[in-house]
Amino acid sequence: MFRHTDHLQFDAKPEKPDPVFAHKLQELIGGAYGEMTVTMQYLFQGWNCRMPGKYKDLIMDVATEEIGHVEMLAVMVARLLEGAPATATTKAAMADPVIGAVIGGMDPQQAIVAGGGAMPVDSNGYPWNGKFIVASGNLLADFRANAAAEAQGRLQTARLYNMTDDPGVKHMLKFNLARDTLHQNMWLKAIEELQADGLEPTTVAPNALLDEEYAEHAQTIWHLSDGAAAAEGGWATGPQPDGEHEFTYLMDPEALGDLASAPPPDPKLYATYD
Amino acid sequence: MFRHTDHLQFDAKPEKPDPVFAHKLQELIGGAYGEMTVTMQYLFQGWNCRMPGKYKDLIMDVATEEIGHVEMLAVMVARLLEGAPATATTKAAMADPVIGAVIGGMDPQQAIVAGGGAMPVDSNGYPWNGKFIVASGNLLADFRANAAAEAQGRLQTARLYNMTDDPGVKHMLKFNLARDTLHQNMWLKAIEELQADGLEPTTVAPNALLDEEYAEHAQTIWHLSDGAAAAEGGWATGPQPDGEHEFTYLMDPEALGDLASAPPPDPKLYATYD
Amino acid sequence: MFRHTDHLQFDAKPEKPDPVFAHKLQELIGGAYGEMTVTMQYLFQGWNCRMPGKYKDLIMDVATEEIGHVEMLAVMVARLLEGAPATATTKAAMADPVIGAVIGGMDPQQAIVAGGGAMPVDSNGYPWNGKFIVASGNLLADFRANAAAEAQGRLQTARLYNMTDDPGVKHMLKFNLARDTLHQNMWLKAIEELQADGLEPTTVAPNALLDEEYAEHAQTIWHLSDGAAAAEGGWATGPQPDGEHEFTYLMDPEALGDLASAPPPDPKLYATYD
Amino acid sequence: MFRHTDHLQFDAKPEKPDPVFAHKLQELIGGAYGEMTVTMQYLFQGWNCRMPGKYKDLIMDVATEEIGHVEMLAVMVARLLEGAPATATTKAAMADPVIGAVIGGMDPQQAIVAGGGAMPVDSNGYPWNGKFIVASGNLLADFRANAAAEAQGRLQTARLYNMTDDPGVKHMLKFNLARDTLHQNMWLKAIEELQADGLEPTTVAPNALLDEEYAEHAQTIWHLSDGAAAAEGGWATGPQPDGEHEFTYLMDPEALGDLASAPPPDPKLYATYD
Amino acid sequence: MFRHTDHLQFDAKPEKPDPVFAHKLQELIGGAYGEMTVTMQYLFQGWNCRMPGKYKDLIMDVATEEIGHVEMLAVMVARLLEGAPATATTKAAMADPVIGAVIGGMDPQQAIVAGGGAMPVDSNGYPWNGKFIVASGNLLADFRANAAAEAQGRLQTARLYNMTDDPGVKHMLKFNLARDTLHQNMWLKAIEELQADGLEPTTVAPNALLDEEYAEHAQTIWHLSDGAAAAEGGWATGPQPDGEHEFTYLMDPEALGDLASAPPPDPKLYATYD
Amino acid sequence: MFRHTDHLQFDAKPEKPDPVFAHKLQELIGGAYGEMTVTMQYLFQGWNCRMPGKYKDLIMDVATEEIGHVEMLAVMVARLLEGAPATATTKAAMADPVIGAVIGGMDPQQAIVAGGGAMPVDSNGYPWNGKFIVASGNLLADFRANAAAEAQGRLQTARLYNMTDDPGVKHMLKFNLARDTLHQNMWLKAIEELQADGLEPTTVAPNALLDEEYAEHAQTIWHLSDGAAAAEGGWATGPQPDGEHEFTYLMDPEALGDLASAPPPDPKLYATYD
Ligand SMILES: [Ca+2]
Ligand SMILES: [Ca+2]
Ligand SMILES: [Ca+2]
Ligand SMILES: [Ca+2]
Ligand SMILES: [Ca+2]
Ligand SMILES: [Ca+2]
Repeated sequence: MFRHTDHLQFDAKPEKPDPVFAHKLQELIGGAYGEMTVTMQYLFQGWNCRMPGKYKDLIMDVATEEIGHVEMLAVMVARLLEGAPATATTKAAMADPVIGAVIGGMDPQQAIVAGGGAMPVDSNGYPWNGKFIVASGNLLADFRANAAAEAQGRLQTARLYNMTDDPGVKHMLKFNLARDTLHQNMWLKAIEELQADGLEPTTVAPNALLDEEYAEHAQTIWHLSDGAAAAEGGWATGPQPDGEHEFTYLMDPEALGDLASAPPPDPKLYATYD
Repeated sequence: MFRHTDHLQFDAKPEKPDPVFAHKLQELIGGAYGEMTVTMQYLFQGWNCRMPGKYKDLIMDVATEEIGHVEMLAVMVARLLEGAPATATTKAAMADPVIGAVIGGMDPQQAIVAGGGAMPVDSNGYPWNGKFIVASGNLLADFRANAAAEAQGRLQTARLYNMTDDPGVKHMLKFNLARDTLHQNMWLKAIEELQADGLEPTTVAPNALLDEEYAEHAQTIWHLSDGAAAAEGGWATGPQPDGEHEFTYLMDPEALGDLASAPPPDPKLYATYD
Repeated sequence: MFRHTDHLQFDAKPEKPDPVFAHKLQELIGGAYGEMTVTMQYLFQGWNCRMPGKYKDLIMDVATEEIGHVEMLAVMVARLLEGAPATATTKAAMADPVIGAVIGGMDPQQAIVAGGGAMPVDSNGYPWNGKFIVASGNLLADFRANAAAEAQGRLQTARLYNMTDDPGVKHMLKFNLARDTLHQNMWLKAIEELQADGLEPTTVAPNALLDEEYAEHAQTIWHLSDGAAAAEGGWATGPQPDGEHEFTYLMDPEALGDLASAPPPDPKLYATYD
Repeated sequence: MFRHTDHLQFDAKPEKPDPVFAHKLQELIGGAYGEMTVTMQYLFQGWNCRMPGKYKDLIMDVATEEIGHVEMLAVMVARLLEGAPATATTKAAMADPVIGAVIGGMDPQQAIVAGGGAMPVDSNGYPWNGKFIVASGNLLADFRANAAAEAQGRLQTARLYNMTDDPGVKHMLKFNLARDTLHQNMWLKAIEELQADGLEPTTVAPNALLDEEYAEHAQTIWHLSDGAAAAEGGWATGPQPDGEHEFTYLMDPEALGDLASAPPPDPKLYATYD
Repeated sequence: MFRHTDHLQFDAKPEKPDPVFAHKLQELIGGAYGEMTVTMQYLFQGWNCRMPGKYKDLIMDVATEEIGHVEMLAVMVARLLEGAPATATTKAAMADPVIGAVIGGMDPQQAIVAGGGAMPVDSNGYPWNGKFIVASGNLLADFRANAAAEAQGRLQTARLYNMTDDPGVKHMLKFNLARDTLHQNMWLKAIEELQADGLEPTTVAPNALLDEEYAEHAQTIWHLSDGAAAAEGGWATGPQPDGEHEFTYLMDPEALGDLASAPPPDPKLYATYD
Repeated sequence: MFRHTDHLQFDAKPEKPDPVFAHKLQELIGGAYGEMTVTMQYLFQGWNCRMPGKYKDLIMDVATEEIGHVEMLAVMVARLLEGAPATATTKAAMADPVIGAVIGGMDPQQAIVAGGGAMPVDSNGYPWNGKFIVASGNLLADFRANAAAEAQGRLQTARLYNMTDDPGVKHMLKFNLARDTLHQNMWLKAIEELQADGLEPTTVAPNALLDEEYAEHAQTIWHLSDGAAAAEGGWATGPQPDGEHEFTYLMDPEALGDLASAPPPDPKLYATYD
């Protein structure tokens, strides 16, 4: 069960409205790597975690924080849209190119649908959806996805940081950047701890079926694109990070399988056949 | 530009048809972590890579291999659907519960739409879409996403491996598992190499704005869920993986921000207001 | 079965083209509360209505009218796009900021895909889809959804009315506003009539299981957000609209359930477990 | 900002696993009228509410409760999936029709993707998305949508209540049904209060442009479907619920508009034209 | 404007219920090539048609008919679902494998969401959406798409025809098959007529820029897959259907372009770069 | 299995950057008729083709070429975005209307998400998805869809050709236009060849059930829209293209079916019923 306080986790006070930036900021709310994604990803991981204790508790701590990040951004968007020329006539827009430019860069739905508020969509108006998250039950696989999500999230935040010079907006984004730094380090540390605790001892998720898979095919990178420099990387020779395999680079690979072909069709499906 | 050989990268020969498993196997074709995802993720990363040389060449090698993985799975699905009772009458299904069970577990579209073939959808018939991939231009952020994708992919393959006992299907999945092992190690190695080459020297993506973000907020995990064990993890104290920050755990956090509130509405948007 | 007359239900004649407004008007065609939604919502409700007579006939009357509303808007969009600078070169756009502003605010797909016509999408280019509608078979639940849809639709129409000063466009929108007024009143009246006819006698949909549900939990609003004013509303004390329950406001609620936890995992699913 | 307690709002303890019902229960998590929808709908309405006080506080109280409803259902699903025959071989399934039937009715992704847990999808595996919600800033329009959503939600819960006889599942659903009863009454009461407070004095949302719209078209229901009984309803004559209009029923309506036609095309768009 | 008669265009009377087939039949309602697609495709083509006369009138005739096809199928689905064991307990399902099989093959949403009715979704529960249609303004391009859609539609209808032996269902499908035959021939005839009328004189859509495109690249099929038989087809030599080009087959094609590379990144976007 | 060469199939070198055009060009990458669609459509058709030989080989030749078309366009987009004012401050944009106009017309995600690269989305930012393709196993139905896709693709390319005057962009588009011309002729020729080979002897797909369908309903076009000119077309009288049917035009059609009605509801589904 959850509780809510009316104070934001951190300030979200722009110095002045900026409807074009409000449009872009939707990426951090409803984009594939926005705050709705980490909220739902961590909530479902927590609810789906079978093992009580520190991992589950950490996931729920951070999940709960992330709901508050959606809140900070939603409030910021509503404030950035204050007085937006949503209701200006087209005539005025065409007479004043500056207003026209602003209108061109706005999200029409923030005015028409949301009445000057944030929406659960990204910066192109595409809705957040449940396929943006993963919660597999395997903590190594999921923490790696979490670290990846925080990396993309911080990258997008950094790009947006350069697209505004409003001190109030930058003030909030400096907080967000810092949380994304912390969360990257935190999930990486949690991956180390899974290994230290013996829960997921190797780098390979899941730590299973390693004896059944074809070991010879877990070694060789196939040269299938004619740029030759891939053979110069650290992945071309030497031990793999799991300590169990060697890397090799296969310069002239040949297909190992049979001819790609489909069986004769069931006549009642009317596939063309001779 | 690409070229194609009619031989599969590896065998995809089931011992006998199994339409229920053909349905499930769609997850590895068109699911969020299926082969279409890694194909398109790596292709767009490669095309979007600004830096010629070993990283770009590696990405294109693996991207090109992954198209062939979609091919192997599509051929496997077509073969598993051979003679599927797609055209059995409902009457027969209800008289014979075994056939009924099979029909119940089939994907109706594999018969009605694809004529007994694979489709670019997941195991619930949801179509693959472009939001499943990321190609940000930042190789640290993207390689972390790649390692995460290969981990989820191997996990799903391992689960499917336990849902069949067809030797021909298992034969192919042993190859797939091995490639997913290799690709996880490979992307982890490439992350190490980015650091060794000085291109992305820390664990934080992007390696930027670290001096501008609020350092004090890059240290503390907030205790916002009442399970107390999170304070016992390695993420509660000590140095962070980036070597630049310490971890602390804030047991009684208070909101730092102002009241969540939206500005007075533009009257022409008809928001309710006093 | 349906028939069509080539005359529009009402005039859709703009005084002059306005491609930026044509972009916004898509919201009323293919948006979540646009005319395609009420068309399909009412059609499926009518087809799914089990009870011949006045309710079913009303639904089909209005459903049939709504197809004509999609038509009016589609024709309006095509006329607003006449002569749109779709084919202007980028060079010209950059030299002339007014044209640039217009181009910035246009929907690129109205030109590239539709050749200067309307599309079944909203004002951000997101396609209309079948999840926008509901047709549950329960007329109380569905008429309430219909009144809600007409309210959102009229709200969006009113906002758009303020975004143009073209007399021809305003002429059409004055008709649309009136129909949305009528349809709100009509569905509210139909809800009253369901009660008067004894078909759905209370305000609760469905009128069922009221004796089996836990009555004590149908009374209390839980104070879970620290703003205290909710206790001052009419929903905090007194009788509920259904005449069967009292409202109370629970100031210090405690969770009643057990610990949120998931069972031990099946080992073959490879969830992390100790 | 939010906080979380590890106890559920109410018990979610099934007597025994039931993977087929776990599949269906997804409708209440990620369906168009599931708990994720009311969670996000109320959160965005609260964040977007411009008027501090009882309405905003009520919205945030209920929004916060709804996150806990998603949690209860997610935990219930994980428990219903315990020991699900996810890893049974197809061979076994075909030999044992009972297991086959169960497998046929399961969601393959609950096993393959979520490792035996809940997902943010509906009972057909379609992901929850941001278009399922509305938060317009107009409280009359939004509260009407809220009452409609709770009605559909209670209806679906009631149908699911009849599809199980597990006492533990029914115990939880009796709580959910009661909350949906309360929430319907609560939003209806809040609509009354908006009127009593003079904020939205009529039944028409928004309370605006009533003098500009064409009054004569706010009165007549058009007979466009040949069932004649619609003229017998309360909506055919007499005063409308807003107290401002009369209802009339137009038995032989004629189209009022001009011919539906599109203007000559821009030649560079290559529309076919004579 | 449209009008509706309560009689179906053709009978839709199944001999007895069949919930599994009702599930499959959704493909013809809301699938990519179902009746909603042709309805909306033809409506938008008609509204977007700039040229009054026989083409526009034909499109509107057929569009109007197609709405009635959605209606026939929706009524058929509601009748096939009559008495479906939607409310059977799971216990019963597991005791009786025949009922279990049926439940396994049903669409859970037809019961839970639609109360035993049809929905605007396909046979996997995926919603119909506006991207399924095309209305480009170019009649040659669009009529070709129409003929293609009717072909896929008839193919799916034919497959479904073999999946039932209910005489009432087959009776309706014999009508649908016939209409799909007619409509294929009709659109092909209309393409001939466009040519005869001199509106779109060649087989290439659009009939434009044929002098500006690189003629030498409009002749040669590139051999990029190692199966050699493609050189034996009629497309390898001889005149092309447009009468303006010759076919040739290029056995050893080489890439003509420059190296695939992206420009140096803007530093503020934080792409990895040396 | 596939191989890749680093050279593009044809040059993709713009003379100078143009971020507005880069936005529009996304239509040809990830739009419904873009290069991702033909790539995946032909790949799945090839993998699903049951008949070895010239048809399958041709499909795979062209499928493999199309992957290279996605590549050309992705590289072109990255180059068009070089130096795009993605990081300009809003302040600057508002002071300089030309930059503002450009920003207004840009895709925000090409900067924020992709770091200045292409994405698998269309010109409105909507993601490519698996429902855009068809691969039915019936070559007549599929080749007709292929010819239709190439026609829409060439039409969109032609429109975009008029929206730029960059010689380098036009150079590439002249190649693309030529390929789309060739591919239209090629699929039309392949349809002729299917007939010549006796594989699909008539114009109706599938060539089946022609004796079982109701022949009288395969003849008459129903006059359901009041424009009368449709009776003047070649489709109103005379032989149909399949040589098997005559066309007739039914001027006063009457519905042939029974009343549209749904059966009484199962009481446990709570549909409203008297
Ligand atoms: Ca965050
Ligand atoms: Ca792979
Ligand atoms: Ca309307
Ligand atoms: Ca609830
Ligand atoms: Ca039809
Ligand atoms: Ca192409």
